[in-house]
Amino acid sequence: MHKVIFDTDPGVDDAMALLFLHHHAEIDLLGITTVFGNATIETTTRNALFLKREWKIDAPVAQGAGETFIPHRITHEPPKFIHGDDGLGNIGVPDVIDLPVDPRPAHHFIVETVRANPGEVTLVAVGRMTNLANALKEDPEIVSLVRQVVIMGGAFDVNGNVTPAAEANIHGDPEAADVVFTASWPVVVVGLDVTTKTVMTRSQLAEIRDAGGKRAELLFDLSQFYIKFYETRVPDGMVVHDSCACAYVVRPDLFRTRTGSMRVVCGGLADGQTIQKPDDMGFGPSDWDNLPSQRACVDIDAEGVLKLIHDTITSVRAE
Amino acid sequence: MHKVIFDTDPGVDDAMALLFLHHHAEIDLLGITTVFGNATIETTTRNALFLKREWKIDAPVAQGAGETFIPHRITHEPPKFIHGDDGLGNIGVPDVIDLPVDPRPAHHFIVETVRANPGEVTLVAVGRMTNLANALKEDPEIVSLVRQVVIMGGAFDVNGNVTPAAEANIHGDPEAADVVFTASWPVVVVGLDVTTKTVMTRSQLAEIRDAGGKRAELLFDLSQFYIKFYETRVPDGMVVHDSCACAYVVRPDLFRTRTGSMRVVCGGLADGQTIQKPDDMGFGPSDWDNLPSQRACVDIDAEGVLKLIHDTITSVRAE
Ligand SMILES: [Ca+2]
Ligand SMILES: [Ca+2]
Repeated sequence: MHKVIFDTDPGVDDAMALLFLHHHAEIDLLGITTVFGNATIETTTRNALFLKREWKIDAPVAQGAGETFIPHRITHEPPKFIHGDDGLGNIGVPDVIDLPVDPRPAHHFIVETVRANPGEVTLVAVGRMTNLANALKEDPEIVSLVRQVVIMGGAFDVNGNVTPAAEANIHGDPEAADVVFTASWPVVVVGLDVTTKTVMTRSQLAEIRDAGGKRAELLFDLSQFYIKFYETRVPDGMVVHDSCACAYVVRPDLFRTRTGSMRVVCGGLADGQTIQKPDDMGFGPSDWDNLPSQRACVDIDAEGVLKLIHDTITSVRAE
Repeated sequence: MHKVIFDTDPGVDDAMALLFLHHHAEIDLLGITTVFGNATIETTTRNALFLKREWKIDAPVAQGAGETFIPHRITHEPPKFIHGDDGLGNIGVPDVIDLPVDPRPAHHFIVETVRANPGEVTLVAVGRMTNLANALKEDPEIVSLVRQVVIMGGAFDVNGNVTPAAEANIHGDPEAADVVFTASWPVVVVGLDVTTKTVMTRSQLAEIRDAGGKRAELLFDLSQFYIKFYETRVPDGMVVHDSCACAYVVRPDLFRTRTGSMRVVCGGLADGQTIQKPDDMGFGPSDWDNLPSQRACVDIDAEGVLKLIHDTITSVRAE
């Protein structure tokens, strides 16, 4: 079993990833922590509560950061053209969801949950790295208590998606990401190098709807706006970024990784760019020296991952 | 015919590239301009004169920059462990070569030669971009008078070689490179994406020596130190970076290129990194907007280039 805290900014592809975690037999979802990004922190938290209610998820929701790790950093407007004004494809999420939020801020929730389950918690972070960086700042000792950190973010050997240099989750809080990547806990980064290869077609999504019952119907509906965004970018369908990170947790064999220390560019032209120093390459002294070696995903069995997503989400048929 | 000014910091692979240009039937070498990099400006100029004398090259040698485009930038020590203390593999180049240097500084030589041959000159730059940036500063109108600028430098979809982010020629003067890449002249960048695929084995180099006479013998001898450096980096032989740029001039069909505006990161973690915004990718507003689209080489027919080098250098047998 994998005990997972899911750190997320729902977000359409976040929603699919959440349903994947909820339905996978080897995942024990301990909590959902929210972060700003695809929408404001109020909206992503509301969306997490909405999905928790609709999909009958037991795990608590803890609200996280609404601003970057470094205060007063330039922040970027939520990408409403990708995830909709409501962050869930403009399906008409109610303004208020009548469910309690965990009283702790997300980074406290993370620290306390990790300390209560030493060596067992996998952090799956598919938004900005702000909550994880705040948790590390609050309690640096958690680096030796977390089992693994699996991140959707970054772009190593390919272009970014916000700028030619940077991917959205990392670009949204580069200093936080640099803290998380260089901490002495095991990090796996599932970035655009592999997620952009993982395109779920319209018909594959429809198959999930047809086989998956009511929960999958909601997933299908909230994904339509996002698919529209991808119309000019992929031949058919949508990139399922965040689900790739969840797939890694249970099926790392579907990925090829490269080890090496990682840094995030903070400021300037390449703001938010992720750069790895592969362990098997020699360089002179550099800013990558004496940092923990982490894993960057460089290739993926995309068909295998899409099948895993299908099989997992449709494995539980909720009417 | 291609009228070429060769801007270079000899440098072992520079020497091979120079012999290639000297021997190729479609190249009219108008001048050799030197720049600091693989060694000090005094040493690279001395080496250019040495090769001019040994290989009986008519083209004049003009001495160029010994410091970066922006004064007082941090500069990096010459890589003596790659090119030797003398920049030519420690073969014992005489301290002084009794040949005249062109009285003009390199950037004046470039401006005047371009103006004397409007629309005809190809600049092949295989060292730091300092002389080209100085020439642009001196006379910005040359952008419409130069036929093409072909550069060995940078790393787009692969790691650098000086740091995980940056390649040596660009890292040595990032501000100069950013000026050159963003100017409105046609630029082709032949970077590590393709040059590191172009490894000349020891036996291929020996074949050139055996078939190429005295000039090729010198090339063979001065390359041995450089091959030693590459022993731990490639299975056998050496990367012929600079010759790839020369090959592009006469055989662009051996390369696959990608078009898009290019910037160079100046300062910080990624200092000297080259980043292209591919024309076929959409982004929000970015620092790459409204700049000329240039060509980055993303693939190479390495065997074809190595054969071209062999055939060209051995086509003239100088005893
Ligand atoms: Ca997300
Ligand atoms: Ca050179």
